[in-house]
Amino acid sequence: MDTPTPPTPRPIDSGAVTSPALPEPDVRLPVRPELADEQPYGAPQLDVPVLLNVNENPYPPSPAVIDSIARAAAEAASGLNRYPDREFLDLRADLADYLLEESGAHLAPEQVWVANGSNEVMLHLLQAFGGPGRTALSFAPTYSMYPEYARDTHTAWVTGNREQDFTIDPERAVSLIQEVRPAVVLLPSPNNPTGTALRPEELNPILAAARTSGPDGAASVVVVDEAYAEFRRTGTRSALDLLADNPHLAVTRTLSKAFGMAGARVGYLAASTDLVDRLRVVRLPYHLSAVTQAVARAALTHRAELMAQIASLRTERDALATWLTEQGLQVVTSDANFVLFGRFEDRNAIWQGLLDRGVLIRQTGPEGWLRVSVGTPQEMARFRTALGEVRQA
Amino acid sequence: MDTPTPPTPRPIDSGAVTSPALPEPDVRLPVRPELADEQPYGAPQLDVPVLLNVNENPYPPSPAVIDSIARAAAEAASGLNRYPDREFLDLRADLADYLLEESGAHLAPEQVWVANGSNEVMLHLLQAFGGPGRTALSFAPTYSMYPEYARDTHTAWVTGNREQDFTIDPERAVSLIQEVRPAVVLLPSPNNPTGTALRPEELNPILAAARTSGPDGAASVVVVDEAYAEFRRTGTRSALDLLADNPHLAVTRTLSKAFGMAGARVGYLAASTDLVDRLRVVRLPYHLSAVTQAVARAALTHRAELMAQIASLRTERDALATWLTEQGLQVVTSDANFVLFGRFEDRNAIWQGLLDRGVLIRQTGPEGWLRVSVGTPQEMARFRTALGEVRQA
Repeated sequence: MDTPTPPTPRPIDSGAVTSPALPEPDVRLPVRPELADEQPYGAPQLDVPVLLNVNENPYPPSPAVIDSIARAAAEAASGLNRYPDREFLDLRADLADYLLEESGAHLAPEQVWVANGSNEVMLHLLQAFGGPGRTALSFAPTYSMYPEYARDTHTAWVTGNREQDFTIDPERAVSLIQEVRPAVVLLPSPNNPTGTALRPEELNPILAAARTSGPDGAASVVVVDEAYAEFRRTGTRSALDLLADNPHLAVTRTLSKAFGMAGARVGYLAASTDLVDRLRVVRLPYHLSAVTQAVARAALTHRAELMAQIASLRTERDALATWLTEQGLQVVTSDANFVLFGRFEDRNAIWQGLLDRGVLIRQTGPEGWLRVSVGTPQEMARFRTALGEVRQA
Repeated sequence: MDTPTPPTPRPIDSGAVTSPALPEPDVRLPVRPELADEQPYGAPQLDVPVLLNVNENPYPPSPAVIDSIARAAAEAASGLNRYPDREFLDLRADLADYLLEESGAHLAPEQVWVANGSNEVMLHLLQAFGGPGRTALSFAPTYSMYPEYARDTHTAWVTGNREQDFTIDPERAVSLIQEVRPAVVLLPSPNNPTGTALRPEELNPILAAARTSGPDGAASVVVVDEAYAEFRRTGTRSALDLLADNPHLAVTRTLSKAFGMAGARVGYLAASTDLVDRLRVVRLPYHLSAVTQAVARAALTHRAELMAQIASLRTERDALATWLTEQGLQVVTSDANFVLFGRFEDRNAIWQGLLDRGVLIRQTGPEGWLRVSVGTPQEMARFRTALGEVRQA
């Protein structure tokens, strides 16, 4: 794992609370052996002025968005004694509308699935199609949560390697897929932490091979993780275009990034109805709260405003890449709201130097590289100043 | 499965949406074999005037509660571009306070865990302690979701039998536990669908045996599922009392029932810090949205008002049990907000007759029995009238 050790939980002042008895030595919890030494996943949560470490959108919701959310929550609250709509087809229809607008994809509401963050969408995918005796495959370096999803579902985890420039060699990828016969192939586009988008010449041969490369001659489900898709450069296509011809393709999205709704935990995917119906079997009933459904729908009504921020974040990203290059650093071309740059002999020293100057970025990806999220112009100015100082020191 | 077949999803008017291409015959999804014929879990969602089928609290939140929730959601909304607090210790502290008040249990915030409904709490428990090669055990008839949690985590599922009166024979239970060596024992109290609370003479010997009855001489984790605990009769104790001496005990609770917050999806548990820390490893990061955390905290501030409704629901339940007995029916003593009654030669006919009269109850539990949730006095009057008519017909 390339993430720093997570911090221990904040100590709590237990005040007048009576301490519970310590576990007696004769009681040992039946923790699964593979979990015994594991730590909870997550980037350090530090109290730092400039947070550029987890690819959040730096712009808080506007007063108009906050007002809509409060109204939606109040309306949902009036019926909270009842279980929520298990099928949330209104939200699924709204998301289908949005994807039509954003990518020109024609989707029925039944082709959309929603869960508490892309995390849970991925869990549902691996519960339905992965599991014991099955394998999930990706190409490293890639998103560090993927092996956790695999572990949590007892799915074997295999990675091929990306090329020097972090693209995927389609011929090598297809041959690996045919060898491993994965139930699920995870392809982030743009990739995290590199920002590299999948090109059609990579995705098309993989999709073709995947039609029969899964267990027992079934397909491999190909998951194109488009968490950052809205930040893609002009000309980069979404895999949503390919859904009509590929019933084994799932394209995942989120409201966390482009919509600036990371705190609301709304991830979703688009796929064939057949594929989505398999997720309905493994989801816990009522997994999506009435409030979450209402908040998501409220946010979607403000998409014009929220999408306008995207344009400025893309501009800021490209300016950042240019500036980093001018500093003599290597920069990976990014279709996302973050940039991977390097290479440093001691990346930890750079990371720590930035942190000492109030700027938190992320040590992730291959040795020598660092990832910085795109923030506001003010935040990026502080980052540039701090990096300049650290490199001179 | 004793639940009626779930309804097919509502048809959607796809309007101008272009139909996606049908899956081509050469692509077959790699669905796990054990899921291939499964249907999504859930009671029928029917549009009926009197809903007494899923043990919801019939009282919608008051204007004061709605207002608090809207304010809390607005406050949370202002920071939604950031990920939520992964450890949600404020909410855990509030729940510890509530449990102190409700049951006299002294708990540190780190002994409390929260997830999107008790469903997800159970998933975390079985992810941490169950899984392939391990077994979860309960005593039938019991909650029909338990085997789903086991299936979703690849945990083997074994049930012993309850006695004629739906209590558990401690001697037989202990001997079954010693034979099966379960990683997890699931003991609802009160039990669903019977309403039967666990007595100390059942729980204490099970807890003692469970100290070393799990895999490889470890403990079995004993989960006392107290989803309906607040409805218990005077004199019935909560298992929270036993936490200090039993590091392998987890007591689950929910805001769905007593707090009338089923739509908000907030389940929680209390256990030793060691046990809770194991759940932190398997939870998806940021599983609990900032809005869910805020809504739960807002609801908890209104607990005096919400608890007052409990008293009236308990009174209504006891009056219902008396009335059913007077009708010559068998009634299981209930510590919950529902009552199991019977026995009917053709329970489906009774269920359908009630539905025809606008009253939806649940066909669940052993053959011949029906379960009815406790609603408002007006709803119960309609239920009584409808049942009288159906039985005379």
